[in-house]
Amino acid sequence: MSHDDDSAAKVRTVCCTRRVLLGRPSLGTGRCVKLPVRETPIRVPGFRFAGVACGIKGGRKLDLALVHSETPATVAGMFTRNRVKAAPVVIAARHVRRGRAQAVLINSGNANACTGAAGARVAIAACRQTGIALGISPYDVLPCSTGKIGVVLPAVSMVRGIDAAVRALDAGALWQAAHAMRTTDAFPKVATRRLQVGGRSVTIAGLAKGAGMIAPDVATLLVCVITDARVAAPALRAFLRAAVATSFNAITVDGDMSTNDTVLVLANGAAGHAPLTPASAGGRCFAAALAGVMESLADMVVADGEGATKRVRVEVHGAATPAAARRVARSIAGSQLVKTAFYGADPNWGRIVCAAGYAGVLLRPERLGVRISGVEVLRRGEPAAPHVVRRAAAAMRRDTFTVAVDLGAGAGAATITTSDLTPAYVRFNSAYST
Amino acid sequence: MSHDDDSAAKVRTVCCTRRVLLGRPSLGTGRCVKLPVRETPIRVPGFRFAGVACGIKGGRKLDLALVHSETPATVAGMFTRNRVKAAPVVIAARHVRRGRAQAVLINSGNANACTGAAGARVAIAACRQTGIALGISPYDVLPCSTGKIGVVLPAVSMVRGIDAAVRALDAGALWQAAHAMRTTDAFPKVATRRLQVGGRSVTIAGLAKGAGMIAPDVATLLVCVITDARVAAPALRAFLRAAVATSFNAITVDGDMSTNDTVLVLANGAAGHAPLTPASAGGRCFAAALAGVMESLADMVVADGEGATKRVRVEVHGAATPAAARRVARSIAGSQLVKTAFYGADPNWGRIVCAAGYAGVLLRPERLGVRISGVEVLRRGEPAAPHVVRRAAAAMRRDTFTVAVDLGAGAGAATITTSDLTPAYVRFNSAYST
Repeated sequence: MSHDDDSAAKVRTVCCTRRVLLGRPSLGTGRCVKLPVRETPIRVPGFRFAGVACGIKGGRKLDLALVHSETPATVAGMFTRNRVKAAPVVIAARHVRRGRAQAVLINSGNANACTGAAGARVAIAACRQTGIALGISPYDVLPCSTGKIGVVLPAVSMVRGIDAAVRALDAGALWQAAHAMRTTDAFPKVATRRLQVGGRSVTIAGLAKGAGMIAPDVATLLVCVITDARVAAPALRAFLRAAVATSFNAITVDGDMSTNDTVLVLANGAAGHAPLTPASAGGRCFAAALAGVMESLADMVVADGEGATKRVRVEVHGAATPAAARRVARSIAGSQLVKTAFYGADPNWGRIVCAAGYAGVLLRPERLGVRISGVEVLRRGEPAAPHVVRRAAAAMRRDTFTVAVDLGAGAGAATITTSDLTPAYVRFNSAYST
Repeated sequence: MSHDDDSAAKVRTVCCTRRVLLGRPSLGTGRCVKLPVRETPIRVPGFRFAGVACGIKGGRKLDLALVHSETPATVAGMFTRNRVKAAPVVIAARHVRRGRAQAVLINSGNANACTGAAGARVAIAACRQTGIALGISPYDVLPCSTGKIGVVLPAVSMVRGIDAAVRALDAGALWQAAHAMRTTDAFPKVATRRLQVGGRSVTIAGLAKGAGMIAPDVATLLVCVITDARVAAPALRAFLRAAVATSFNAITVDGDMSTNDTVLVLANGAAGHAPLTPASAGGRCFAAALAGVMESLADMVVADGEGATKRVRVEVHGAATPAAARRVARSIAGSQLVKTAFYGADPNWGRIVCAAGYAGVLLRPERLGVRISGVEVLRRGEPAAPHVVRRAAAAMRRDTFTVAVDLGAGAGAATITTSDLTPAYVRFNSAYST
């Protein structure tokens, strides 16, 4: 059993380094825009994809994605914990509970959230129509929506779009589907891993969209992971929960949890090996690969954070428990003052320690340590000399860096990836109406 | 018994309306700067004040304030709940516990936070020196610091400053003291109320500093309220808790809770009436006046929020309980996406409802209502017509407006005052090192 994560690694590298600024962010109205990634062809046995323009966004913009498994797949899903759930979230969650699915229908440009009974009717009709067109049960169709809140999904566009999408289904069209999921995303987000299970080659591919409204409880996004691995639904649920913990539950952009967050995994078993369980050797390998796909996607979401110019890993260790470490990491990664200091490349350990202090966790200031990309700016509560702090400032001028905080109280550790808070984020979100 | 809050009302009006932008906020490096308020003379019988330059900030900038009561006063205090408490917070909290005090010593430019044993020694020495110079016990001196984190308070400057401050003490120098407390504050913050108790005239005056690191748990600030009312320490504690609940615990600027938050009330009894208790008629009148002073100061802090251009009252009603209403109000008032929409004058009820949804409170989307300055943009989950939404957008272009959210579930209500999130906030805090 071996991992082959070259393509994903490439995709990630491209996303995070090949970045150009269209106009100066301090003067323009816009945000950092990254160049499109290189779209290496990706196929997952037994799956077909489509990305079409159905008219929700207007013009020829891609706004409807369809993922279809030729045979029924097992499915697991996680959804927003926001009390205000969009209609498609309620319906998809109901369908996922059956443990099987065969299609995922994703539209962008309209979240179909806060749309009451009318919104639910359109979402249900879309499932029915997709089911008829594909010759499957409407309960095997999982609807997802992302975009503007408060507008009912236009039924006419969906009717036209579903027919076009079913006609366009193709095993080589994964990137088209990823493009059609985008809203404010600067680039499509795709990651893959390949592994060997019982002598069979297994592929895992993930498609995601997300750039704003990213909070650490299943960051605001739509994710669809597909694999030809054979996994029973209960095991798939366990795999998903574990992978989300280290990926989409470990990032933040702006701390806002959306109405539409959805993470789905479909496994169609086409690889033909014996069913995977979390305890088996194959299962452990699958778990690592699934987490790898999700962590790559999560990294891309933070790198694409609205207005973001930097991606920062906040690592907390030495906490009394992992839960305490997580609270402190979230508090630091979410602090507006810390995030503006990241933007200004200011090694402001005072703000970091202050944010740790209000995380609601017992801590002793005289034991705290802070390292920025390895440079120790605070050691057992004592600040470093100015020339050391200058070295940390230099490290913070890079695109990505790490802030490691030692609480000096135990063995609990946690990591959250966050972005900087920039004037471009504010300008973008004050001009853009969700 | 009657209130006379003319002077406070005037001060507040001036603060919030006479505002000029130094340079265009979208281009300049700075923030909104408000014109200085009109400094109406304020005296509180039995109290003297000083504001001097001791050299912490450098040059002739005022950076040390002293408030002195000629006779021992009863005292109550509330302090930051941040686990990383500055040295002066620890010492002041210890001194306050005795229930009496006679002087408050406040320096700006240095928070004396995360400074370990050395920081504590300087703070204790400052109390001792102030006590000797004033002929009072060092335990009757309450130290407060605000400014840069991580630098020990310079003892030499403090020694020089304390002597100068004691010499400068004057019953008419309250505004000088308010000026000396400022860090990033664009204007000094003072509010007063006068009332009659048992035929005697009673004055309450409050001095505050605060503009950034403002979260709803005793917003990051220093507040010193002084009165010639006669109140025993336990009753004063009850009065303070009640007044803070509707003032400093009901505002937010950036959600960051500082290491130095301190709110003090000193009552020297010079008015000579019978001691006030919360249950008595005089006590109720005093409670209302004290809350009035603190609410005025809290309003000024939000109006002076770093980079803020707007002050927004978020009123939540129809919640199952007051606590649920408070959670929803805090979630909306703290949401980055909502605050950027305030900046962009975008009546984005979708973001408001979304932030309500992740407050951790049960709510039914089909019952939600949102009014912006009286304009109903959402009614029982149904959005208003576009021309109505345009009226709401017009209201949001003003300096202050109200967002009222009806949860349709009960009688619980709560209000939080917040500011908008602007590119100037980010620029200011990425350039300024605390």
